Amino acid sequence: MTLPPAPSRSFASDNAAGVHPLVLEAIGRVNVGHALAYGDDDETRACERRFSELFGRDVAIFLTFNGTGANVLALTALARAGDAVICSDWAHINVDETGAPERIVGTKLIDLATADGKLTSEMIADQVHALGDPHHAQPAIVSITQSTDLGTVYTAGDVAEICDVAHRHGMRVHMDGARIANAVAAAGGSVAALRAMTIDAGVDVMSFGGTKNGMLGGEAVVFLDPAIGARGHYVRKTVTQLPSKMRFVAAQFNALLDGDLWLALAGHSNRMATALHAATAGIPGVDAGPPPAVNSMFPSLPSPAIGQLQAWTFFWDWDRSRHQVRWMTAWDTTIDDIETFATGVGEIVAVCN
Amino acid sequence: MTLPPAPSRSFASDNAAGVHPLVLEAIGRVNVGHALAYGDDDETRACERRFSELFGRDVAIFLTFNGTGANVLALTALARAGDAVICSDWAHINVDETGAPERIVGTKLIDLATADGKLTSEMIADQVHALGDPHHAQPAIVSITQSTDLGTVYTAGDVAEICDVAHRHGMRVHMDGARIANAVAAAGGSVAALRAMTIDAGVDVMSFGGTKNGMLGGEAVVFLDPAIGARGHYVRKTVTQLPSKMRFVAAQFNALLDGDLWLALAGHSNRMATALHAATAGIPGVDAGPPPAVNSMFPSLPSPAIGQLQAWTFFWDWDRSRHQVRWMTAWDTTIDDIETFATGVGEIVAVCN
Amino acid sequence: MTLPPAPSRSFASDNAAGVHPLVLEAIGRVNVGHALAYGDDDETRACERRFSELFGRDVAIFLTFNGTGANVLALTALARAGDAVICSDWAHINVDETGAPERIVGTKLIDLATADGKLTSEMIADQVHALGDPHHAQPAIVSITQSTDLGTVYTAGDVAEICDVAHRHGMRVHMDGARIANAVAAAGGSVAALRAMTIDAGVDVMSFGGTKNGMLGGEAVVFLDPAIGARGHYVRKTVTQLPSKMRFVAAQFNALLDGDLWLALAGHSNRMATALHAATAGIPGVDAGPPPAVNSMFPSLPSPAIGQLQAWTFFWDWDRSRHQVRWMTAWDTTIDDIETFATGVGEIVAVCN
Amino acid sequence: MTLPPAPSRSFASDNAAGVHPLVLEAIGRVNVGHALAYGDDDETRACERRFSELFGRDVAIFLTFNGTGANVLALTALARAGDAVICSDWAHINVDETGAPERIVGTKLIDLATADGKLTSEMIADQVHALGDPHHAQPAIVSITQSTDLGTVYTAGDVAEICDVAHRHGMRVHMDGARIANAVAAAGGSVAALRAMTIDAGVDVMSFGGTKNGMLGGEAVVFLDPAIGARGHYVRKTVTQLPSKMRFVAAQFNALLDGDLWLALAGHSNRMATALHAATAGIPGVDAGPPPAVNSMFPSLPSPAIGQLQAWTFFWDWDRSRHQVRWMTAWDTTIDDIETFATGVGEIVAVCN
Repeated sequence: MTLPPAPSRSFASDNAAGVHPLVLEAIGRVNVGHALAYGDDDETRACERRFSELFGRDVAIFLTFNGTGANVLALTALARAGDAVICSDWAHINVDETGAPERIVGTKLIDLATADGKLTSEMIADQVHALGDPHHAQPAIVSITQSTDLGTVYTAGDVAEICDVAHRHGMRVHMDGARIANAVAAAGGSVAALRAMTIDAGVDVMSFGGTKNGMLGGEAVVFLDPAIGARGHYVRKTVTQLPSKMRFVAAQFNALLDGDLWLALAGHSNRMATALHAATAGIPGVDAGPPPAVNSMFPSLPSPAIGQLQAWTFFWDWDRSRHQVRWMTAWDTTIDDIETFATGVGEIVAVCN
Repeated sequence: MTLPPAPSRSFASDNAAGVHPLVLEAIGRVNVGHALAYGDDDETRACERRFSELFGRDVAIFLTFNGTGANVLALTALARAGDAVICSDWAHINVDETGAPERIVGTKLIDLATADGKLTSEMIADQVHALGDPHHAQPAIVSITQSTDLGTVYTAGDVAEICDVAHRHGMRVHMDGARIANAVAAAGGSVAALRAMTIDAGVDVMSFGGTKNGMLGGEAVVFLDPAIGARGHYVRKTVTQLPSKMRFVAAQFNALLDGDLWLALAGHSNRMATALHAATAGIPGVDAGPPPAVNSMFPSLPSPAIGQLQAWTFFWDWDRSRHQVRWMTAWDTTIDDIETFATGVGEIVAVCN
Repeated sequence: MTLPPAPSRSFASDNAAGVHPLVLEAIGRVNVGHALAYGDDDETRACERRFSELFGRDVAIFLTFNGTGANVLALTALARAGDAVICSDWAHINVDETGAPERIVGTKLIDLATADGKLTSEMIADQVHALGDPHHAQPAIVSITQSTDLGTVYTAGDVAEICDVAHRHGMRVHMDGARIANAVAAAGGSVAALRAMTIDAGVDVMSFGGTKNGMLGGEAVVFLDPAIGARGHYVRKTVTQLPSKMRFVAAQFNALLDGDLWLALAGHSNRMATALHAATAGIPGVDAGPPPAVNSMFPSLPSPAIGQLQAWTFFWDWDRSRHQVRWMTAWDTTIDDIETFATGVGEIVAVCN
Repeated sequence: MTLPPAPSRSFASDNAAGVHPLVLEAIGRVNVGHALAYGDDDETRACERRFSELFGRDVAIFLTFNGTGANVLALTALARAGDAVICSDWAHINVDETGAPERIVGTKLIDLATADGKLTSEMIADQVHALGDPHHAQPAIVSITQSTDLGTVYTAGDVAEICDVAHRHGMRVHMDGARIANAVAAAGGSVAALRAMTIDAGVDVMSFGGTKNGMLGGEAVVFLDPAIGARGHYVRKTVTQLPSKMRFVAAQFNALLDGDLWLALAGHSNRMATALHAATAGIPGVDAGPPPAVNSMFPSLPSPAIGQLQAWTFFWDWDRSRHQVRWMTAWDTTIDDIETFATGVGEIVAVCN
């Protein structure tokens, strides 16, 4: 077996990718002279305006460092003492944030079993019985992930149904949009698609991802209902998520929003996942699973092949009991990377199968 | 009165400055291909080694986004339920972090009145009476700021005395070194000076600042006693301070540490403050205060002059009751900036005095 | 249908019962003169000694007000930042404490699906994969409930297996023993049975219930490994659970421990549940479920009968979708109460069936 | 020196006293049959009505176990993320609660230096500058103690002034009334005096003490503005302060409120302190300080006398640097106790002076 050199860009995660050249250029462009810190600068003000334009309505935005921080900020702004957050058992806030929501928000997560990472309006309705019972943490917030950590996507209708039932019972809805761009790209890749699945559907506050979509680092908490964000400045600081040299976070977002670069990058990433699926689905011994909705696929491989492939070019295990792994594309994945990777998969699986 | 154009670089804060060219270049240099996220990359590993070299001993370091986050991480690693943190009433953790330590660490701050922002070993000894009393939060952690928010500096001897009394009573010592570089520069600007006032003096854990000293954004929590940092990976994530594209934070620090750039920048910043003091101390109506120890001065001005000067080029009020303001230099302040600024001060104060 | 008067003692909960006469007498007995507050009194010292005698080894005990408080104290003493607590989805800490553990301990609960409210050593082993992963809250504490909120009981062997796997992976084990007396009574009702299922099995800390077993109010946190309780005095106060007039809590426990009254009361309560089951299992239309292990049963009734019975003498719904309710006996339940209740059940179900 | 036997009731603290006979009788009276737990019982409903009658308006009350818990409940109901609580440096929440407010409320305490433990409206006004600054915890809550831990009392006018300035700036006012009865007794001992210094003065929520005034254990959080207490049921449970056998707490309060027993007991306690002051002020070597306003005095004694007196009958040191101690009377202190105590003081001080 003679393996090619590993692909230049791995399939480990979209956060293994670097910074898009236009984003880096924007950082350099604003690196002139002094600008007041903490967001009192022109670049940040421009960024705030652009988010309001993006959503077609005045929204309140707060730039933050990372996704966990954005989620914690949003949930802290919503939660009152004794409240709980309904989420999927696969939600990032539940699985991948080391208890930050519990510790900092101080709130319970009610993590509901889901096969595909998606909550349904029926699941929300099932939790309503606890409302008014002083012994139960009050299910007052619903947090959904778009796209989910399982690579699935809520339709605008799904989100609207969840928001409807939530609002009917006095609950608020948070969307963890660390990969919102991929979800919007999957839904057609237009600003209209973004609005349909967020502000028009009734989402109250969202985390709007930047890092996984070509930024060096930065996320935005967008209060689609600005009233909820009225105290966001204090909340952001008390959860440690106030960047001092804010202009550099704002400039990155401004670069992404310019000419809808954010949608182009996510669309590319999604297409690369589709191409990867196509390139590997036919390999004997590879159970490629369903075609990707966004930028990840979760194939099952012969067990001995997994470690050999990872030693060649690293990716993450997903469910060892089922020999399942995750392959993820990024804004910079190329067709060459995919061909090289598929070749390697073919070689190694052939030996191990 | 004909004012010159405002100086290109203001005297508002060192975090109003931008990114040093070598730091920006380093970001660009590591922006090649993919690197595993969250610190599992060569650049971060190199950064970790360099910090151990810097301190002459194996230390445990954790890169973070910002200073509040670094402080919260360090204190969370130290604090047990029922503990309290002794600090100066002027400490950043007490005054400027919107209660993040209380909320996230879950601990009380015992803020002692200080004229110059510096704790003394006597003040620590005065708190010992509460140890063992179950009704009192236990003063188990001492947090000192180096240099302080008042522009003062602890000598290595000061720090050693504080550590001695603290350790004698089972307390741990944290140093908030958001401006550690300025303090070291003031003490001679050598690695030996750094070690003398930190690891050799007995500090257990420190926040090592980068953002104010020419970085785009990033700080390091350095457990000088690595045993305390054994669980740092979990603590960092649970306080939301784990950068995903870590290589870009590491590269910035590596650039700062290269050829002791961090000391050169802070030394420059300190010297500019000295020059600013010299340039303004003789202006009639300006009470320039003592010569700066680091990169800030706190002059008093005729009250009507303050607003006019701020309208020309912004800086912060300090103590309105005493018409006192803060002027701060940065790594990029130039002699031209100072001359321009001093001219403006002279013009406006002449009119207002 | 002519219903008898409702039974004097309902079947709603063991905490609807009052105070045992000997407990009330003890409160009166110690109500003489002054005693230093917060546990610095002879009655409390006697209580502490008695718990050590009960467990046959020096244990560290901390009296508290209530069960939620006892659990929160115990878990706070165990948990470090970034830790999580493994528990059953039916655990009181998960379902009935309004998020107090998340808010005050600051820790995530990993609630595992259980049919009978009991964790198994296999379930613990399944969580081990998260250890060492900085993105996951660390499953460092196991909390089991004895007897469970579903009326099931761990054998001493069950507990030992859980403790073994937990300790093998560096985890600690907490037992929520709000109804420990009922569990011990079910296991033979001896001090040996208590020790076998707690200290001998390897439990590190337990909440030892008093309120549901004839006290006016009071629980004890017992650190079976006293080293874990070394800071218990501070932890108790910081979680608001330090009673000032402690002698009155201690006197209640001393009364319960005198002549093993605690076991007699729980044994009686358990027997009454068995009698209630026998008295109702044969009623057509009543699905009595399995015979009670402790002092509760969970029958299913014809839906229309439930509301009518509750209007006559209140008890709690359990699972409305299955027309299931909970009947619970207490230390003071009498055979007369049971006969009256069974008569009423028979009358009403006959009409509704 | 031949000392008399120590007095039957010490002068250590009012929480060293026992339970008033009528309170104990009430506990026994309600110990009949079953009553639903957690406040769904007639005794609790009666207690709630009586508090509304006491304040002359519908208030929302929540019974709790202890004073720390009551304070934490009240502050949690008021505080939002990023808020701070202004209090005196002598406040119980600041000094004597082991950081429970910081940990559980998650909020910063801004403890202002006071000579007499009393905040003033000017001090509140001085903190207003921080409002609106995202770097500062927002001083949104004022907590005053009535009577203070230094034995001083706010007049109704003092409280009204504080509430006025607080409300003018959008702040809420909490009163820690662990010893409210003593304060009311000092102000004339009428219900009108209570209302004048609380609800009429504009206090939003108060902790109403019972334990120190003859109860076995229990406090009430009274939301004088019931809207603030709308979520009190959830807040109480999430801070661990929901008593299960609530009727016994309610019965104690009902006994205290019957025939204004609460005022009679506190009035007696205050008068005993006055008598104690009179009996000791003339003893050579005793600096008795000012006559007590409520039920405590803070004399200075010859240093060697302090330990000898404490060995005879314990009381607490106050300020060792000034040889100052605290003597406190209780609802059950007798003239005999005072005479015995004064004799002992005289004897021992005579020897030591």
